[in-house]
Amino acid sequence: MLVVMKPQATPEEIQAVCDHIQQLGFRPHPLPGAQRTAIGITGNQGQIDQGNIEELSGVAEVIRVSKPYKLVSRDIKEEDTIIRFPGTNITIGGRDLAMIAGPCSIESREQGFACAEAVAKAGAQFFRGGAYKPRTSPYAFQGLGEEALKIMAEIRDRFGLRIVTEAIDAEALELVAEYADVIQIGARNMQNYSLLRAAGRKRKPVLLKRGLSATLEEFLMAAEYIMSEGNYEVILCERGIRTFTDHTRNTLDLSIVPAVQRLSHLPIIVDPSHGTGKRNKVTPLARAAVAVGADGLIVEVHHQPDKALSDGMQSIYPEQYEQLFHECSQIAEILHRNIPRGVSITEDAGAAHPAAH
Amino acid sequence: MLVVMKPQATPEEIQAVCDHIQQLGFRPHPLPGAQRTAIGITGNQGQIDQGNIEELSGVAEVIRVSKPYKLVSRDIKEEDTIIRFPGTNITIGGRDLAMIAGPCSIESREQGFACAEAVAKAGAQFFRGGAYKPRTSPYAFQGLGEEALKIMAEIRDRFGLRIVTEAIDAEALELVAEYADVIQIGARNMQNYSLLRAAGRKRKPVLLKRGLSATLEEFLMAAEYIMSEGNYEVILCERGIRTFTDHTRNTLDLSIVPAVQRLSHLPIIVDPSHGTGKRNKVTPLARAAVAVGADGLIVEVHHQPDKALSDGMQSIYPEQYEQLFHECSQIAEILHRNIPRGVSITEDAGAAHPAAH
Amino acid sequence: MLVVMKPQATPEEIQAVCDHIQQLGFRPHPLPGAQRTAIGITGNQGQIDQGNIEELSGVAEVIRVSKPYKLVSRDIKEEDTIIRFPGTNITIGGRDLAMIAGPCSIESREQGFACAEAVAKAGAQFFRGGAYKPRTSPYAFQGLGEEALKIMAEIRDRFGLRIVTEAIDAEALELVAEYADVIQIGARNMQNYSLLRAAGRKRKPVLLKRGLSATLEEFLMAAEYIMSEGNYEVILCERGIRTFTDHTRNTLDLSIVPAVQRLSHLPIIVDPSHGTGKRNKVTPLARAAVAVGADGLIVEVHHQPDKALSDGMQSIYPEQYEQLFHECSQIAEILHRNIPRGVSITEDAGAAHPAAH
Amino acid sequence: MLVVMKPQATPEEIQAVCDHIQQLGFRPHPLPGAQRTAIGITGNQGQIDQGNIEELSGVAEVIRVSKPYKLVSRDIKEEDTIIRFPGTNITIGGRDLAMIAGPCSIESREQGFACAEAVAKAGAQFFRGGAYKPRTSPYAFQGLGEEALKIMAEIRDRFGLRIVTEAIDAEALELVAEYADVIQIGARNMQNYSLLRAAGRKRKPVLLKRGLSATLEEFLMAAEYIMSEGNYEVILCERGIRTFTDHTRNTLDLSIVPAVQRLSHLPIIVDPSHGTGKRNKVTPLARAAVAVGADGLIVEVHHQPDKALSDGMQSIYPEQYEQLFHECSQIAEILHRNIPRGVSITEDAGAAHPAAH
Repeated sequence: MLVVMKPQATPEEIQAVCDHIQQLGFRPHPLPGAQRTAIGITGNQGQIDQGNIEELSGVAEVIRVSKPYKLVSRDIKEEDTIIRFPGTNITIGGRDLAMIAGPCSIESREQGFACAEAVAKAGAQFFRGGAYKPRTSPYAFQGLGEEALKIMAEIRDRFGLRIVTEAIDAEALELVAEYADVIQIGARNMQNYSLLRAAGRKRKPVLLKRGLSATLEEFLMAAEYIMSEGNYEVILCERGIRTFTDHTRNTLDLSIVPAVQRLSHLPIIVDPSHGTGKRNKVTPLARAAVAVGADGLIVEVHHQPDKALSDGMQSIYPEQYEQLFHECSQIAEILHRNIPRGVSITEDAGAAHPAAH
Repeated sequence: MLVVMKPQATPEEIQAVCDHIQQLGFRPHPLPGAQRTAIGITGNQGQIDQGNIEELSGVAEVIRVSKPYKLVSRDIKEEDTIIRFPGTNITIGGRDLAMIAGPCSIESREQGFACAEAVAKAGAQFFRGGAYKPRTSPYAFQGLGEEALKIMAEIRDRFGLRIVTEAIDAEALELVAEYADVIQIGARNMQNYSLLRAAGRKRKPVLLKRGLSATLEEFLMAAEYIMSEGNYEVILCERGIRTFTDHTRNTLDLSIVPAVQRLSHLPIIVDPSHGTGKRNKVTPLARAAVAVGADGLIVEVHHQPDKALSDGMQSIYPEQYEQLFHECSQIAEILHRNIPRGVSITEDAGAAHPAAH
Repeated sequence: MLVVMKPQATPEEIQAVCDHIQQLGFRPHPLPGAQRTAIGITGNQGQIDQGNIEELSGVAEVIRVSKPYKLVSRDIKEEDTIIRFPGTNITIGGRDLAMIAGPCSIESREQGFACAEAVAKAGAQFFRGGAYKPRTSPYAFQGLGEEALKIMAEIRDRFGLRIVTEAIDAEALELVAEYADVIQIGARNMQNYSLLRAAGRKRKPVLLKRGLSATLEEFLMAAEYIMSEGNYEVILCERGIRTFTDHTRNTLDLSIVPAVQRLSHLPIIVDPSHGTGKRNKVTPLARAAVAVGADGLIVEVHHQPDKALSDGMQSIYPEQYEQLFHECSQIAEILHRNIPRGVSITEDAGAAHPAAH
Repeated sequence: MLVVMKPQATPEEIQAVCDHIQQLGFRPHPLPGAQRTAIGITGNQGQIDQGNIEELSGVAEVIRVSKPYKLVSRDIKEEDTIIRFPGTNITIGGRDLAMIAGPCSIESREQGFACAEAVAKAGAQFFRGGAYKPRTSPYAFQGLGEEALKIMAEIRDRFGLRIVTEAIDAEALELVAEYADVIQIGARNMQNYSLLRAAGRKRKPVLLKRGLSATLEEFLMAAEYIMSEGNYEVILCERGIRTFTDHTRNTLDLSIVPAVQRLSHLPIIVDPSHGTGKRNKVTPLARAAVAVGADGLIVEVHHQPDKALSDGMQSIYPEQYEQLFHECSQIAEILHRNIPRGVSITEDAGAAHPAAH
């Protein structure tokens, strides 16, 4: 259910409606919009009497939401969600595209810095690197853990790049939420509801990857799990689905980008690296992702892909990333969008290296 | 790597080999067989010098295992794994088929007991019931939690049925391992490696459901995660994969039963309820599962399926389960296998109601 | 639309209704049932005024059929279709299961006879063998064509087996319809509508294989194409669908058997050879197919599978087929069905070898 | 096998090698390249002695081709195939992209002309329109047949557009080859090998659509069937595959575009209309197809999509096509490619309306 407040409703009136909802045993989610605030109501205890709520001061109307996803839906929030990173000019969502790049795993301080320098030079604003790796085999390299997180914190200080890294369980989540700027939930955990809820209780944006066999509705419902806990900064990410084809590791389903954008206000980015699993297909599919209207790209870049401990096959070289960045920027312009180059530190100037404009 | 001990090797010799492996920084997994003991070695720190190990007293030979799954493999353990439940005649694996039945969720003490009585009367040995439900929507019924576990513990005492229930996260796992006889890991968590490892540290059998888009290798590797932590009692479960078809909720892939049995010593059972999602298809597919050679069945049975809080569409009536049980028993016989009826308490007679023979 | 005639309607009344329908520009399909005759109406020229038809003598009621398949549907014909083979006791559909077996391709007279003798001895009633092979490569063995058809005609004379073979185009169809007893339409041609229509104009039963990515509705609609031309003897065949799995060549979707039987009166059989693509999985899946309720099995049997020109990997040995036949017979009994052994020639005794009872 | 001729080999030497191959019982396929001619050899009669051929005058070397596709492969022909349309400046393959557009079916002369005028005005060079429609239901509109072909021939005369239309069987093929400029083979017939062979005996380019569950290899092998008969002008077309997703009718697999381009010299275009099945997704996916590197687009455009007899849901309005055309042209430029606007008649000036530059 959605309570739409009048444009002139005061903060006190909004608070009073939230309190009333809470007293009824439900959870209010105030969602400020450009014109007016809406308040989403969630909880599974059955039906509420909407008449009473409509009588409260400042309430314009109460709408029943029939879709299974509520907070995720454009019915509840019409404008695109734009996620901001304090102290920088960086955003995810809206007109600017987010460019995230880096190695599959952080393997060492040297490797991390080499990769970070390369992607920062190309113009990326975000650095991705795995600290905790969900691997098919228990005997494969599982990531450096907190050591990797510390290296990435240094990378943020040195290059100004915001850090994106995956949390694979509750324990890792605590550390990732402490060190990183964006918490990634991987495809294998897209329906790990306990982890989704825990991420929903953090106050850092969450990058949620689509599961290998997730439908659009299941994908949006996974985001709903995070939002239902009060964290409204969710970035969706298409990374390929599992099909019968064998010429790529997964089948990148670019049609989900406009499909999500119709139904939801959340930004959706694309991962052409996992989406194809082959170096020579990353750039063409990255271009296609921008052309279809994606809100950003997450790409695996390694300074020495042939020596990578994981996913070397699908990591591209720094010079390939520069080319990709350039071509995608041109395509974005045609769609009246923009790929900003690098990071400007707006306040906390001591913490980061100014972007290379 | 696998160390095969001589038939006459003493426990002391076996222990000495294990100690040596541990000193090298690896993990030994002693696997007693009918003729002799083998010791699996796991760990990802690179190559071991197998020459040294072959010189140890009691060692017959050292074999390199090239498959990605090791402890799961028949190469390491040729005989079928048979899981026993102390104090009863119940087993999973081997000649006898395991019959597991019960409602999707425990909704109340009354509902739990009514369902349990029905399945016990039909001849089942195991009772399944959800305490923690992974639901697509955060607003749907999520299970009664520990209250449900307590009800199931009472059901075990009352009917002698062994209890199977799902653990959805580390927290639930602690409680499930305490109350239940078999820990279920659901399809959505098949690649939740932290949860698999945690289940591997428990000393209760684990029922591992195949993920919706898991290949045979990924399925076996998930079991390997559990076994790599020292818990060798894993039961695999086929429950349908996601395909393009729309006449059933999932596509039950019965061919994985003989495929698993070729490669692995672990038992594999089938869930025709989730595998079809439709009441009228549960019994035909249950018969097919027994005919293909499955080591057991897990079936959703509800005394009032139309009032069930979850999965009512695919739950069958008690009288349908009796018919299913009867037909499957006859098919099992043709394959020279047996579906035992009910539970005999062999020792701890006070704890359980004798089975209805 | 379906015209249901009164139980006491005379042949003349039925004919008059058919004539009337034809005058309206539509096609009548008289479908005699146990109690009364129904007349299906097909054609795409829009809506008919059903009031006029209801006024005709002998008409009980006129029913609009909303499903896209009409002649295929149980709504139009409630009883199972049973296909009979004149001069023999052989049927497809109903209580008896049809056992069809033979090599992928007819490679020579010797090979054909050796295979036929083996399957006849085991108890099969039908012999399958490819004369025209749809091969992925234009450079692979494409079958012996009419020569193979002649060999199979000799096999019928010698062993009494009825002949099933594939027609891949209009030209082959003419010859197949002349020589064979059952015209097979392969999976790759399931939506070759011209071929379906042409087969619908023949007066021989048609065995229609499910396409690799056909939904249940598309499968039934393909049968509808055949029936819409006046050939009501269609046998459906599940032979595996294409999914992401890699442990079998295709994924055998046994759930379609009860799904078809609910919606349609047509018999449905199963092909565990193409359904798995692996010799060691044919027998387990054949048993499962009978247990799920299939109306028959079509199995690739070769006396020397390792020398087969096509599909040797999935062809089983004669002694494996005997074992399969035996196990399936026992399972059929449990379902109160019967697998008849061999062929009894009821009239044209000179033409065939009596069955080995 | 591939015979590579020396750069200076004479036409007589080339002919002599071809004659020799034919005498050996094989089929030679001379493939002229920029530098030198190669001669592909096809036929399934086993191994040839390559030593003898290497001794022939003008032969540089003989290469064994291990891939199952031969004539399709870049190993045999390195340069992109460019298909030319005599009397015009139109090409398919190479730097220029082919823009094909029009209604699903030709419904009437008026509708055909209205659609053709709209797409010609937008800049398209090819007009698509169905004369023979493969429909899931035998009772649905099946196309106007030859009448539609005649309308399209008039459209060619009036607007200069080249005509693309589907042949669904041998009979339709004769007429399509007579009236149209490009013969389309639909997805459902991708493995209708008789039809492929028959199309291979025509001297008109063939547009081959990917089957719903075709792998890359099967797709290329279908093209090989056409080429093996001597027709080397094949255009491949990705039109979506069948997966578990439900937010689009099919899943457009854009990664196959660079995959085909790596392995084959044949042009590959994309059909975003069938690929998505939804009007609002056609333009985004069309842009993505150009960005990924496709050699052209085939798009359903209807002047009154809501009144279309087939596929109205996925047909776009003329003004949407203009916008699509404009955006795709800009993206093509970024990739150093070009979308030519309209048709210039180079010789047969009387036959066609000059393009609107």
